[in-house]
Amino acid sequence: MKPSAKTTAATETVRVELGARSYPIIIGAGVLADVGTHVRDACGPGRVAVVSNPTVGNLYMTRVAESLRGAGCEVVSVEIPDGEEHKTLTALGSIYDRVLAAGFERRSPLIALGGGVVGDVTGFAAATLLRGVPFVQVPTTLLAQVDSSVGGKTGINHASGKNLIGAFYQPQLVLVDLDTLKTLPRRQFLSGLAEVIKYGLILDADLFALLDQQLDRVLALDVDLLREVVRRCCELKALVVRRDERESDYRAILNFGHTLGHAVESVTAYKRYSHGEAIAIGMAFAATLSGVRGYCDQETVRQSIALLRRVGLPVELPVELLGDQLVRAIAGDKKASSGKVKFVCLTGIGGTRFVDLTSEDIADVAAQWCAGRL
Amino acid sequence: MKPSAKTTAATETVRVELGARSYPIIIGAGVLADVGTHVRDACGPGRVAVVSNPTVGNLYMTRVAESLRGAGCEVVSVEIPDGEEHKTLTALGSIYDRVLAAGFERRSPLIALGGGVVGDVTGFAAATLLRGVPFVQVPTTLLAQVDSSVGGKTGINHASGKNLIGAFYQPQLVLVDLDTLKTLPRRQFLSGLAEVIKYGLILDADLFALLDQQLDRVLALDVDLLREVVRRCCELKALVVRRDERESDYRAILNFGHTLGHAVESVTAYKRYSHGEAIAIGMAFAATLSGVRGYCDQETVRQSIALLRRVGLPVELPVELLGDQLVRAIAGDKKASSGKVKFVCLTGIGGTRFVDLTSEDIADVAAQWCAGRL
Repeated sequence: MKPSAKTTAATETVRVELGARSYPIIIGAGVLADVGTHVRDACGPGRVAVVSNPTVGNLYMTRVAESLRGAGCEVVSVEIPDGEEHKTLTALGSIYDRVLAAGFERRSPLIALGGGVVGDVTGFAAATLLRGVPFVQVPTTLLAQVDSSVGGKTGINHASGKNLIGAFYQPQLVLVDLDTLKTLPRRQFLSGLAEVIKYGLILDADLFALLDQQLDRVLALDVDLLREVVRRCCELKALVVRRDERESDYRAILNFGHTLGHAVESVTAYKRYSHGEAIAIGMAFAATLSGVRGYCDQETVRQSIALLRRVGLPVELPVELLGDQLVRAIAGDKKASSGKVKFVCLTGIGGTRFVDLTSEDIADVAAQWCAGRL
Repeated sequence: MKPSAKTTAATETVRVELGARSYPIIIGAGVLADVGTHVRDACGPGRVAVVSNPTVGNLYMTRVAESLRGAGCEVVSVEIPDGEEHKTLTALGSIYDRVLAAGFERRSPLIALGGGVVGDVTGFAAATLLRGVPFVQVPTTLLAQVDSSVGGKTGINHASGKNLIGAFYQPQLVLVDLDTLKTLPRRQFLSGLAEVIKYGLILDADLFALLDQQLDRVLALDVDLLREVVRRCCELKALVVRRDERESDYRAILNFGHTLGHAVESVTAYKRYSHGEAIAIGMAFAATLSGVRGYCDQETVRQSIALLRRVGLPVELPVELLGDQLVRAIAGDKKASSGKVKFVCLTGIGGTRFVDLTSEDIADVAAQWCAGRL
């Protein structure tokens, strides 16, 4: 392994190609110290607002604000409460209030410093303030680094379901500091790995093999390996988003594991499982269903579930969650169209196909799976 | 004049050309009766939500809902309170609640039936529900027919100012029923004429001459003339929006009269003047300032103010509105950039140029104007 100083200095850049809306993702350990220069280069000097939550704010707000001030920016910091239950109109309104009271103009950027909740709410605020101000993502969780900060989905939840209100809005820049993973609670890090494994399963057999072979180094937060893994995830997501920015069709492959995963989160009121854990159950199920239907072989199913299990993620649907409520939650997913769900199946490690299923079809297979008959 | 039956059947279509986001504006007397067919053709059958306010809802909701049901649509009606003060997060939230409770899908359209407030709030709801559902405008005020329903600006107000939160979001279809102008309060109709005159002043000397010569027929709600006038306004706005959809530069010519107009509305708390009346004062002022600075001749200034006055619109800034508050209101306009306002001046009837002015420059000219020295 290379000495730490050298490692820290190395960064990689992934470019998300979307014509006039293209932007770079800069990945490295310690890049938070350079946020000021990067933001000034991307958006010019002037006022900036940094939105965070109390936990991440305590850890990193001072460092980020100093870097921005050092680059000539005037910093307004905004805190929204932590947790999925605060991805609401109320949190959004509090960002509007603070930023507008500070006299923001159309070119003043909003910076999201935190995980998916901070990123989604801040992105939606940026999309809608003055009909659109520049937006910068500084994701501090693995999940946000490989998934939610890339691709332009922003939004808030509604009593009727998650992410039902929002906009497609691309950032000007994404800055991924791998050092922030050192302060991330272990359970959240492992949850993020669920989405990392997803990229391997649906798009990249080499990435899956790398994770399978080097899982110990990943779990030990080896910066070189993390940089490589995060870069590949971002590249894969960038390719998908480039092909289908607004999820007309192809982008839906990223929902692998999410049909059942979202339903599991919903029936457990988002309390029992983290997003990644629910998605791990959903992926184990989707792999199983793919095998049952003959879209992939049993070895693919076995490998998929084995890696999730080695990470320590849940791979079984608790029997008490089965029932009408789960069927309704599957049918209520916003990707549903006229009662059918576009379900993502595996054809092998790194390959997928879409299958139109009713929520009842899905629930039937889930019941057999729970009963241990698959 | 042609007999009424023939007149009623005649419609005109203006196409707003924006690539994949292009859409038609259908203009005629009585087209409300065909809203069902038009919406089904543009968006397909299924669930639709019609958003209106109590006043317009009482007049037209039954007719619109019957037409939609006749075309095979399932109709959810939503009412938001009447008035600019209800263009809020609260009204927006009430649309989200109602539409999501009714189980809307991504292809279910939102229809705005009403004036600018209903159109702006409903459009913003459509832009942000499920990250964007189809949107149809059925404007029932002259102002909405010639201005706010065309061009994709949607949004709500904030305590800090008007339209500070919103999105650019184009409708799939705009349906203009000229018959709705017969139930429009006279003061609102005349206010709408302020924006009609604006199009003549900034872009079309022929339209200005038509209004000047045929004002009596316009004021008598002659349907043939109104169809011609509304069509020309929509064509002009469509051309501007096509050239600069997101107001990078050129679209700002539509703000002619709005710099002072918005400030006047703001310092009078949106109570003393209607939008059109405030804009009439702003246009009279902008014409005067253009003359003072030598950008246009005095005959242009005289003609501009004379037509506004004949319509019965206010063309003077009451002296008690002058002062620091007005300067701050001008500076607080969201189009301001680093203290400078991009002020739209006339170069003659039908011609404009942009001039960068400070809010103090503008206030100085306003003070002289009030004192009768210009």
